[in-house]
Amino acid sequence: MGPVGAERPHVADEQGRLFDLSTVTADIDAGFLGGDGFARTRAALAAGELTEVHDPADGTGLRVGAPIARPGAVLCIGQNYAAHAAESGSTPPEVPILFLKHPNTVVGPYDDVVIPRGSTRTDWEVELGAVIGRRARYLDSAEQAAECVAGFVVSNDVSERAFQIEQSGGQWSKGKCHETFNPVGPWLVPAEDLGDPQRLGLRTRVNGQARQESSTADMIFAVAEIIRHLSQYVTLEPGDLVNTGTPEGVAMSGRFPYLAAGDVMELEIDGLGTQRQRLRAA
Amino acid sequence: MGPVGAERPHVADEQGRLFDLSTVTADIDAGFLGGDGFARTRAALAAGELTEVHDPADGTGLRVGAPIARPGAVLCIGQNYAAHAAESGSTPPEVPILFLKHPNTVVGPYDDVVIPRGSTRTDWEVELGAVIGRRARYLDSAEQAAECVAGFVVSNDVSERAFQIEQSGGQWSKGKCHETFNPVGPWLVPAEDLGDPQRLGLRTRVNGQARQESSTADMIFAVAEIIRHLSQYVTLEPGDLVNTGTPEGVAMSGRFPYLAAGDVMELEIDGLGTQRQRLRAA
Repeated sequence: MGPVGAERPHVADEQGRLFDLSTVTADIDAGFLGGDGFARTRAALAAGELTEVHDPADGTGLRVGAPIARPGAVLCIGQNYAAHAAESGSTPPEVPILFLKHPNTVVGPYDDVVIPRGSTRTDWEVELGAVIGRRARYLDSAEQAAECVAGFVVSNDVSERAFQIEQSGGQWSKGKCHETFNPVGPWLVPAEDLGDPQRLGLRTRVNGQARQESSTADMIFAVAEIIRHLSQYVTLEPGDLVNTGTPEGVAMSGRFPYLAAGDVMELEIDGLGTQRQRLRAA
Repeated sequence: MGPVGAERPHVADEQGRLFDLSTVTADIDAGFLGGDGFARTRAALAAGELTEVHDPADGTGLRVGAPIARPGAVLCIGQNYAAHAAESGSTPPEVPILFLKHPNTVVGPYDDVVIPRGSTRTDWEVELGAVIGRRARYLDSAEQAAECVAGFVVSNDVSERAFQIEQSGGQWSKGKCHETFNPVGPWLVPAEDLGDPQRLGLRTRVNGQARQESSTADMIFAVAEIIRHLSQYVTLEPGDLVNTGTPEGVAMSGRFPYLAAGDVMELEIDGLGTQRQRLRAA
């Protein structure tokens, strides 16, 4: 939490009390995630060594930043829910579709999202984000892959559909990389605390009205299979963020209007908290 | 130069003599490129403050690393030479095509390139790489964009064509992100020293035989126009690497065999030096 670029890490206990974590680590980064960061955090919390702070989630406190440092890479899986592939006019993919975003799109869960100049089709995408904690290269099994995931986050893969589909020869990244286009958080939940990542409800509201409403049970490729598969093509590293695809209910379906300045998005996933962003013009 | 992960920065003078730059900066990173790194380097060189070192380019010295720190992002422009678009079976694009690579693909100019398991279509791509030195956001002109480029490098956008085209629903990144798939260097040449980036011969040899042989004059979108255009969609940051597309003469054309373990690629661009990699199996 803190101003952009000067955030300090925090941890919540089981009662939801918030503690300053900066005596344990300067940031939730590759070193923390790839090392014994979670274990040291648990130990410090159990020993009462951390200072409790006021919860800013009521809007009166500090800004909440992303619960991970800027990733080395943001890797995204496209059309990983059959109903979303259908609403996008596509058949369900037979293998995971990979594209990447610029890591500087990652912002805090309550930060404004900026509508690009010239945009008419800015859209939301709630996604289960997997944060890598162990190097993943040529993994043999989904079990090995699951062990490479440090934890999970709510991730909003904000998209400009004209930029994505019409303005880059069919390569999607141009509609995915505008500043603020990847709110993350509010929490990073360790994989061992979350339980089964394939049984989580996830939903989006725009101005309080329901949009996406689905379950990670509907993923075509489960998280562990995605990580195993990607590791045949890419070496994933601690701190990398993998967005695992969005379910149906985006504006591109034609069922809802695209986003406009002043709109408010709320995205939530069971056990991972709720994020909320106001839209504003660039 | 130095072992992987423990490189020290160096600078060459006009006579090609090599000097240790680690008294000026720990790395050629965003802070160096976005600040006055080049000016401090010139001053230290002129004042005779730097220690001359043995040139390792003859293969007897230290390993040569990439001449830039790991980028925050590697952004690539596709099909930016009309003849290459044609050999790829495409019409020339009307706007720059953007895709991204994992920044951990960046390796030194003489490091081995690793052929992925299951690959039958690993291919070379010599490209003029532009290294960003100033934040680029909603630039108004190509002149402004040119000022955002700190310098230029030879970049090899190594590609696995089956992974790129057939195994990710048409999104190219899966064939672009294997470990070692982006050799960079040997030199980072400041933009002011290189002169016009649109008049450079660039070429590739495999096992000593000519493959690509073209000029950056044949780009569809010039470097400055690429940066201006991208800045409408993405905020580019100091240290980002922009690969500006490859000319005709890749294996995908059908005119040459794909790469095999033991092959040697050589890639060069006028004024930016020559890189050379041996292929080996993963």
